[in-house]
Amino acid sequence: MTSFPAPPSGLIDGTVHRFAVRAYIEDTDLSGVVYHANYLRWFERARSDFVRLRGIDQRGANESGLGAFAVVDLTIRYAVPARLDDAILIETRCADLRAASCRMHQKALRDDGILLSEANFRVGFVSPDGRPRRMPDGWHAAFAHIVPEGS
Amino acid sequence: MTSFPAPPSGLIDGTVHRFAVRAYIEDTDLSGVVYHANYLRWFERARSDFVRLRGIDQRGANESGLGAFAVVDLTIRYAVPARLDDAILIETRCADLRAASCRMHQKALRDDGILLSEANFRVGFVSPDGRPRRMPDGWHAAFAHIVPEGS
Amino acid sequence: MTSFPAPPSGLIDGTVHRFAVRAYIEDTDLSGVVYHANYLRWFERARSDFVRLRGIDQRGANESGLGAFAVVDLTIRYAVPARLDDAILIETRCADLRAASCRMHQKALRDDGILLSEANFRVGFVSPDGRPRRMPDGWHAAFAHIVPEGS
Amino acid sequence: MTSFPAPPSGLIDGTVHRFAVRAYIEDTDLSGVVYHANYLRWFERARSDFVRLRGIDQRGANESGLGAFAVVDLTIRYAVPARLDDAILIETRCADLRAASCRMHQKALRDDGILLSEANFRVGFVSPDGRPRRMPDGWHAAFAHIVPEGS
Repeated sequence: MTSFPAPPSGLIDGTVHRFAVRAYIEDTDLSGVVYHANYLRWFERARSDFVRLRGIDQRGANESGLGAFAVVDLTIRYAVPARLDDAILIETRCADLRAASCRMHQKALRDDGILLSEANFRVGFVSPDGRPRRMPDGWHAAFAHIVPEGS
Repeated sequence: MTSFPAPPSGLIDGTVHRFAVRAYIEDTDLSGVVYHANYLRWFERARSDFVRLRGIDQRGANESGLGAFAVVDLTIRYAVPARLDDAILIETRCADLRAASCRMHQKALRDDGILLSEANFRVGFVSPDGRPRRMPDGWHAAFAHIVPEGS
Repeated sequence: MTSFPAPPSGLIDGTVHRFAVRAYIEDTDLSGVVYHANYLRWFERARSDFVRLRGIDQRGANESGLGAFAVVDLTIRYAVPARLDDAILIETRCADLRAASCRMHQKALRDDGILLSEANFRVGFVSPDGRPRRMPDGWHAAFAHIVPEGS
Repeated sequence: MTSFPAPPSGLIDGTVHRFAVRAYIEDTDLSGVVYHANYLRWFERARSDFVRLRGIDQRGANESGLGAFAVVDLTIRYAVPARLDDAILIETRCADLRAASCRMHQKALRDDGILLSEANFRVGFVSPDGRPRRMPDGWHAAFAHIVPEGS
């Protein structure tokens, strides 16, 4: 019988989510390091797993026509380039929870602790026609658990 | 005989570069609009063609071991989502030219003039080992032509 | 006033569609050439523009819940690698039209005529729940115009 | 102190490598399922981890100018579409080992055992200028361990 290892979803430690990724050939470009836009894909994987672990069902919300998260704005700073085979930790923290959006701070750290990149996303809930919409109550409550007080 | 249409490289109008892209299925995600990270790929295409039209040979610099551009930081704001088949104009302007880097402002506009997204990149020249390096003289001169005075 | 150059959609010459793309940094990997999976993105752009030029509205079909094209199977052979800044022509031809699917042959040629890659896709129409479905009549008629007799 | 979970590399069971991935928003397209080209990225991750676990250092070979693997050809069949949040197992088996290349069979299975896609790649070793080259002796020996006799 085939065993089915589960893909990793990261771990929530208090209000921080930690998630591991590896740099593959698909992530690199001809300069030999990870292409700048691909960090955004890593950060999205971590955010998606963070909220999924807190009970937020993005697939269900999409399939039922409820809505989806959309990135409203982001800033990202690149400190040290990631290279093929690097083992990388993505740390995610939430802040500034509002009715329809939340801010998420993310860092990419190499496994020797070196900071590769840090980013700051505002993520908002939008209806299928693209308008900002209050998050479902359960989603807001899920975020409230992971936004430190006073942040 | 097969004719070979050239791919578009956009046009430089004074200090502005204008470049057209279309939103394809590859660019979209399950929410039905273009995935946020894919705007960064469009913006990179426009920046690469802008500097190529000004005589900067990124491929040659890479193959000869001279170095490459790297994104140092960026901010991006998403206003209106792009949808499949949208015809989109990318406008690129340069500012704040330094010895090793330049800032580039970019907008994505739908063909009815609606602003979809705007972004601001600091792009630096780096040696193959990843350290900031003065741009080759010819490259700096090429940028000097497209950075408005006083910017 | 800003001029809005249209993105290129390629040209139909009888039953062949010709479409130009350029290799950008986003397309490359650390080996210095275009990453193998990215040819599939180029081929999809060409197929999408080919059928759009023939009046097939993929976005409308998706938004109205009619269905979408899905790749059923594909083969691809890589002959010569594409490099940064290469100007590439994608040629697309259709064959073997059926009620719910069509086969599409595609080639990527460098602007000096060298064959980079060739591929063969079976593309089927599927309902939103993923089942094969007869193409809309107008779509089938559109394909009938671009499938050579006896193919 | 921050703990650093390692990213998963999959497990080798005899001559089979098993590797788990999850479908994220980045993988999907507007039809609500995973975009066809993105399976190739998953398959590459699995192949890269398989050979890395067997001691093959792709990054070192690239950085030292020894060469790299390149996909020579591939076929892929799509049976059932993957959807957001699906947990997917990638199984990889090698066959037909030659001096400069190897064939790799790969399957993507959903965690309920349903086959999503299967593919067959010929992967060859190439010098930095793109010519087929005998694999390093140690690499060939590593493959010899994972190619079943008579395959």
